[in-house]
Amino acid sequence: MGGDHGPSVVVPGAALALERKPDSRFIFFGDEKAVAPFLDKHPALKAASSIVHTDVAVRMDDKPSQALRQGRKTSSMWLAIDAVKNGQADVAVSAGNTGALMLMAALNLKTMAGVERPALAAIWPTSRGESVVLDMGATIGADGRQLVDFAVMGSAMARIVFDVEKPTVGLLNVGVEEMKGIEQVKEAAAILRAHDSDLVYHGFVEGDDIGKGTVDVVVTEGFTGNIALKTAEGTARQIARFLRDAMSSSWRAKLGYLLAKPAFDALRMRLDPNNSNGAVFLGVNGVVIKSHGGTNAQGFAAAVEVGHDMARYELLAKISAGLQTYDRNRDSTAVGAAQS
Amino acid sequence: MGGDHGPSVVVPGAALALERKPDSRFIFFGDEKAVAPFLDKHPALKAASSIVHTDVAVRMDDKPSQALRQGRKTSSMWLAIDAVKNGQADVAVSAGNTGALMLMAALNLKTMAGVERPALAAIWPTSRGESVVLDMGATIGADGRQLVDFAVMGSAMARIVFDVEKPTVGLLNVGVEEMKGIEQVKEAAAILRAHDSDLVYHGFVEGDDIGKGTVDVVVTEGFTGNIALKTAEGTARQIARFLRDAMSSSWRAKLGYLLAKPAFDALRMRLDPNNSNGAVFLGVNGVVIKSHGGTNAQGFAAAVEVGHDMARYELLAKISAGLQTYDRNRDSTAVGAAQS
Repeated sequence: MGGDHGPSVVVPGAALALERKPDSRFIFFGDEKAVAPFLDKHPALKAASSIVHTDVAVRMDDKPSQALRQGRKTSSMWLAIDAVKNGQADVAVSAGNTGALMLMAALNLKTMAGVERPALAAIWPTSRGESVVLDMGATIGADGRQLVDFAVMGSAMARIVFDVEKPTVGLLNVGVEEMKGIEQVKEAAAILRAHDSDLVYHGFVEGDDIGKGTVDVVVTEGFTGNIALKTAEGTARQIARFLRDAMSSSWRAKLGYLLAKPAFDALRMRLDPNNSNGAVFLGVNGVVIKSHGGTNAQGFAAAVEVGHDMARYELLAKISAGLQTYDRNRDSTAVGAAQS
Repeated sequence: MGGDHGPSVVVPGAALALERKPDSRFIFFGDEKAVAPFLDKHPALKAASSIVHTDVAVRMDDKPSQALRQGRKTSSMWLAIDAVKNGQADVAVSAGNTGALMLMAALNLKTMAGVERPALAAIWPTSRGESVVLDMGATIGADGRQLVDFAVMGSAMARIVFDVEKPTVGLLNVGVEEMKGIEQVKEAAAILRAHDSDLVYHGFVEGDDIGKGTVDVVVTEGFTGNIALKTAEGTARQIARFLRDAMSSSWRAKLGYLLAKPAFDALRMRLDPNNSNGAVFLGVNGVVIKSHGGTNAQGFAAAVEVGHDMARYELLAKISAGLQTYDRNRDSTAVGAAQS
């Protein structure tokens, strides 16, 4: 029921995802009267789907606490997460209210053993391809240990998305020199440096390294991560607007635009945020995917596919294995050294 | 001597600035042998200039502490700042090492009465025009009071740059709802809301509001501000690269590009960071301007002009007046309320 367009995007999106991942099966949680008509248009999807009816839906502008009060155990969002908890589903995908989704997932699925704070990880298009960037705002602030958890969880995700053995990881900072930045980041750096693990610690990276694709995984706490993501989105929209203005500024420009239209279309595709849709809520006992609320069917399908792969290639097991490398007890020396 | 190009950009930049602000007078601090030949090429500038020779120059990759140790009282950077302190100059402009410039300015000029932390404020091109964004990384972290100081200092600068009486000010946050974000930001919001002053407090803004130009002044602490700025720069470069790729991807695209070239040139101009060059180091007893190290003469001239206007329209007096509104004693109630 979530997102700006509800089942009119979610159902066709699922149909697209099914074409690409034919082993998928779907359970739609929501108002049967709203969902069924869309499902009727996609017979192959209908054959692979069931509907669990509920009248209750979290609204996009509900505060998370309010959504929880009104929708606990009854809303489509809660029931979808509950299906993951009960093993009926491997993945929950929602285009709905981000804060409510994270709160319900954390409460119902609980955080994984060894993880203090979950994180929302986005797939960020770069000049080199894509990178995983986290935390996009699941929690505000993170100490050194929690940043290391983010590095481990982001690496587990990157291993699946990019099909690499040892993803490179950078800590987002205001400079690349060792003495720069806030204490928490320096502490995380000391821990990451001190361990041999299934990730390659690259060092500090700066804001412009995200777009360059300097590393596979960029780690930061949620306040900065959220602001970096939205600043980048805002900059992209601003430049797109400037480009539109320029291309309609004269008849020569308009003619040039028409001639180059296939190239502009390819550029638009390359910049289309729907291509990299599907943020992963990492650190809870289940796979929960957040789709952009404003996405189209193509974008929702991308989010479903991310979820499919996270389940198929065992995200949770990969995270657990990664966390063991940085096991609390064995860390005490490294952390002591970092804090001194 | 600073920046990637030294006097070969600084001197022609000053010449351009002199054309636009004919009442300017220049003192060049640096190696006379390096500066004089460039000055000879600009007779009008030469007539309005003097050179103070020194052999010592801060290098771009010096650590600030190292630059201070080696260049205190002797380097061109220190001497330029010293000229502001001694009243020989109204403004110091440097394209050199940012960290060294801020450290030397803070040490030599001292922070203004009532200001705990200085801030580096950039002029950020937006869809609506330009905004002042601070802190770009002068200090890491800021409490609520310090964020209020940033708001006051940024407003004083915005009043000059945009020629408005009451600039609108937004606090950068992860959401616009009152209960969102980190404590420091909420505390600053409470103080700003509680006072009638010569700025209009807009409320929280998000990362994408910077590019939209939602407010005249965007306030955040230095860690997040630095990362937001560099992320935006990185995104702009990334899209420019994608656009170049697209426009050379086929003969139709190349032809279209040629036809639309004047529009592309105008777009390039609009996106040219040299146009909005000149960050202001706010909160010290003097006007200090940081130019991009990689800028061209046009960009350096822009930085000089920013400095000219900051001096001419009395930035420091405007900041002092603004700070009085939020005078420490009168604030105790509002802050108490915000912290409770």
